[in-house]
Amino acid sequence: MKLKRTHKCGNLNSSNIGQEVILNGWVERIRDLGGIKFGLLRDISGKVQFVIDPENKEIYEIAKTIGNEYVIAIKGVVRKRPDDAINKNMPTGEIEIDVNDMEVLSESETPPIYVNKDEEISENLRLKYRYLDLRKDRMKKNLVMRHKALQIVRQYLSENDFLEIETPYLTKSTPEGARDFLVPSRLKPGNFYALPQSPQLFKQLLMVSGFDRYFQIARCFRDEDFRADRQPEFSQIDFEMSFVEMDDILTLTEGLLKKLFKELLDYDLETPLRRFTYDEVMNKYGSDKPDTRYGLEINDFSEDFKETKADFIRKVIENGGKIKGIVLSEKADKFSRKRIDEYTEFAKSVGAGGLIWIKNEKGEVKSSIKKIAENEIKNIFDKGLIKDNDIAFLIVGENEEVNKILGHIRVKLIKEEMEKKDGFDVLWVVDFPMFAWDEEENRLVAEHHPFTMPKLDDFEKYADSDPLKIRAQCYDLVINGYEMASGSIRIHRKDLQNKIFEMIGLSDEEINEKFGFLIEAFKYGPPPHGGAAIGFDRLIAVMAGEDSIKEVIAFPKTASGSDPMTEAPSEVSEKQLNELKIKLDL
Amino acid sequence: MKLKRTHKCGNLNSSNIGQEVILNGWVERIRDLGGIKFGLLRDISGKVQFVIDPENKEIYEIAKTIGNEYVIAIKGVVRKRPDDAINKNMPTGEIEIDVNDMEVLSESETPPIYVNKDEEISENLRLKYRYLDLRKDRMKKNLVMRHKALQIVRQYLSENDFLEIETPYLTKSTPEGARDFLVPSRLKPGNFYALPQSPQLFKQLLMVSGFDRYFQIARCFRDEDFRADRQPEFSQIDFEMSFVEMDDILTLTEGLLKKLFKELLDYDLETPLRRFTYDEVMNKYGSDKPDTRYGLEINDFSEDFKETKADFIRKVIENGGKIKGIVLSEKADKFSRKRIDEYTEFAKSVGAGGLIWIKNEKGEVKSSIKKIAENEIKNIFDKGLIKDNDIAFLIVGENEEVNKILGHIRVKLIKEEMEKKDGFDVLWVVDFPMFAWDEEENRLVAEHHPFTMPKLDDFEKYADSDPLKIRAQCYDLVINGYEMASGSIRIHRKDLQNKIFEMIGLSDEEINEKFGFLIEAFKYGPPPHGGAAIGFDRLIAVMAGEDSIKEVIAFPKTASGSDPMTEAPSEVSEKQLNELKIKLDL
Repeated sequence: MKLKRTHKCGNLNSSNIGQEVILNGWVERIRDLGGIKFGLLRDISGKVQFVIDPENKEIYEIAKTIGNEYVIAIKGVVRKRPDDAINKNMPTGEIEIDVNDMEVLSESETPPIYVNKDEEISENLRLKYRYLDLRKDRMKKNLVMRHKALQIVRQYLSENDFLEIETPYLTKSTPEGARDFLVPSRLKPGNFYALPQSPQLFKQLLMVSGFDRYFQIARCFRDEDFRADRQPEFSQIDFEMSFVEMDDILTLTEGLLKKLFKELLDYDLETPLRRFTYDEVMNKYGSDKPDTRYGLEINDFSEDFKETKADFIRKVIENGGKIKGIVLSEKADKFSRKRIDEYTEFAKSVGAGGLIWIKNEKGEVKSSIKKIAENEIKNIFDKGLIKDNDIAFLIVGENEEVNKILGHIRVKLIKEEMEKKDGFDVLWVVDFPMFAWDEEENRLVAEHHPFTMPKLDDFEKYADSDPLKIRAQCYDLVINGYEMASGSIRIHRKDLQNKIFEMIGLSDEEINEKFGFLIEAFKYGPPPHGGAAIGFDRLIAVMAGEDSIKEVIAFPKTASGSDPMTEAPSEVSEKQLNELKIKLDL
Repeated sequence: MKLKRTHKCGNLNSSNIGQEVILNGWVERIRDLGGIKFGLLRDISGKVQFVIDPENKEIYEIAKTIGNEYVIAIKGVVRKRPDDAINKNMPTGEIEIDVNDMEVLSESETPPIYVNKDEEISENLRLKYRYLDLRKDRMKKNLVMRHKALQIVRQYLSENDFLEIETPYLTKSTPEGARDFLVPSRLKPGNFYALPQSPQLFKQLLMVSGFDRYFQIARCFRDEDFRADRQPEFSQIDFEMSFVEMDDILTLTEGLLKKLFKELLDYDLETPLRRFTYDEVMNKYGSDKPDTRYGLEINDFSEDFKETKADFIRKVIENGGKIKGIVLSEKADKFSRKRIDEYTEFAKSVGAGGLIWIKNEKGEVKSSIKKIAENEIKNIFDKGLIKDNDIAFLIVGENEEVNKILGHIRVKLIKEEMEKKDGFDVLWVVDFPMFAWDEEENRLVAEHHPFTMPKLDDFEKYADSDPLKIRAQCYDLVINGYEMASGSIRIHRKDLQNKIFEMIGLSDEEINEKFGFLIEAFKYGPPPHGGAAIGFDRLIAVMAGEDSIKEVIAFPKTASGSDPMTEAPSEVSEKQLNELKIKLDL
């Protein structure tokens, strides 16, 4: 390189006026205005305008040959732009480079996608030319934020006495959880490694080893059907601590979040965060990951309907069920019959027998139960529970079911009827149930995982009588309606662990097959410990204001798990398969 | 936890005397001395002695039941030890804890391997109980050093404007380089991802994207036969820079090393590091990764032998060959005839026709060529090239061959005859040849990889006449005889790249199959760029004074690529194979 940069484009400003500088970068655009070439040069730091006068004959001739996305080096003097050419929207908008020497470092064909504007193009095309897509300001901003977050996270955890320890990516397949990606072993044909779904077992073993506080920003792998916004590989901030209780872990996590929001967005996150119990959020929002910014809380109308003539409601209430609903304010006029029918269909698709609606449009009450529950509806209006131009959707049934269905309806209402809110809704959900009842297998199953510590008071009280009442020492962090982190205090007592295994009906053989080496390790002095994992991709996406995690991953995969750029996954040679002693079975 | 720690064991000292503290940790040992229990409690920070008096009846009874590796919480007052019990070798050796309350947090069976002493046990046993092995002081020290190194590396590179960007682990199999680990795709049956051997292509694409400076501490995967001290997965400090030349990269790397050595070992690494050309190190040490601390440089005796009566030597010299040798000082008496024969066999095993030796033991000259080269030997002695009690090993042949064979002999001599040296021998090797001649395929091949930039002067001069004379813009970092890092300036000019492909005889089809997407990307303005990768595991091993990288990896694999603890790799279910549409073919 003849002309090696002395400065970066985006760092220049009027304080550099008069200096001779050399810049290296990409030509974002170049055009001829009145016989003079005006160009915009881009590098990682930003952009700056350069000007080539035809008097510089040799350079001007070169300039004629260059196009967008050429890589060039320019040497020139920083000068003030004419007053009428100053661009206040650009950090370097007051200056330009009067070029006196130039070198073409490499050429560019016409790029198949625009680099300098955000057009609507297919995901496939964006990913095929990801290296061009990544030249966009938006993608640079996102990946720079991600880089900063990585450094902040590690610095914070290191300062808090965590050790970063790398755990294996070639590990053992376990039958629990999601589907494993497998890696055939060549040295032990017929055997397979699995890529880890998380470093869960290893981090617990590191606690057994006495490492006290561990962290890792770990790649995790899950071979799921990539619906929604999932990736086959994703990153999580994984950590584990010894000799702690739940509060220690929540407080530590809050400190990390506070720092990230402050340093990345200059946003003051108020801590301690709100904590909701599982029962609270389910009754209030019908979801264990509510976005509370939108209100739309679930109201219990059971008291108002307990003497209704409408049998199908009253009988449910008499049998301990509920009628609950969500009131959407001042939008009744937006709900035509057709639109209401759509919501009814939706409610049915998520398990409802039907959907009750009540609305008040220009003084006129309309409702699907107007005739059979006139008094109750009047009563509700009198109480002011539903106001003019409000519409309410109600569900009748067993409480948990009602909550869940209304939770779905609530999410749909937020997406379709509410204006998108700014800011961040950050909260903890705690006191999850320890067990669920598996109808198919007719047995208890662990809701979180079987190493989660139950609340000991609950356990003592209900283990033998009503285990579904036992709550677990686990916790989820929710941001803007996304489950952003999840963790628990783990069981370290053998007697308790055995009792839990017994309760979920695991035989010694099964225990050994599934968790053998962890159980073995726990014979030799496991400390009390717990931890959590934060979904790093989603966290950055939410902080960057992006809907999809693909916008914050340098080289993501499509929904079918493929990479249009490298064409992975791809066919491999017979020789490779033979070495692994596997055959295709298509 | 009733007793939650207020302090850590290893941080206590005489300044804490009189304070009541709570500690949580492992019982490293406990014994009864004159009816009083003396124990040593261990946590991540270190160890401290605790004392339980039988007057504390309740606690004393508990203490009787606890054994090594139990996890306990103790509460007690820090007091000065009696003068005769002070242990100067222990950071907490002046104090002990007078326990007044205690809680057993978890029990331990007798550990199958010792935690508190370094015994000679099989690797298999160590790895099976790795969680106990990791309790050893040595392993803690190593992993803490590794943690610190990780933070220093990232901090240094961040401060130098590098962005940490995570590249995919599920990527495309390429037929170049070592053997890939494959991952069958379920969503696209019959197709496979490959785990990356390095992020090479992605980091070059990131430069094309304009990220300017990239780094990552990346896991890399190679399915090789795990001879020597290799692991199927390993970590490298991977980085790449745009708009730079070789010197920029070497200087940056030197700054990183200087910082690591200073902060981890308080060792002042002198920079700039010595730089050797490939020709220099090959002629001097017979290796491109020499450990220069041991001297034993190769001497060229060709001038001394050019008129020798020994035909087999003279003829080689007449044909442009060499006779060269290594002189081992003051050790002739250690070389019996049998030992010399062993070295002769070794020389043959690494390609020599035979081994010439000359020694001078107590004034008497002995040599395998004494009779046919008496004058030359005398001459060598007269010149002082071989002194009393020295022994020299000489090889005759074509220069490069001779160097390589002597290089092997030199390494053997260092290992077997020299006392192990302390300190660090750190140097660069530059000016590697760009091409080698493949005898089998009868064509040029790229020595490094075909994207390596040649030295442009060489290229202009020799491309068409003598390409083997072309040197490449690549560089290796060598520490204590290990190749610790490797890198190059990459080609960014299309014309040059095409010419190189042509020289190594790649057809357009082959180019496309092997490097298609990189070539495609390079159409759109690739910047001049280059980078390097540092072997992180080996770097930490050398800095920690460990011979094997297994000592600095938390959960390494055995030489056969298996993990005795988790029993990975393992068999998987029929269901899993069916989902992937593959069959075993054993």
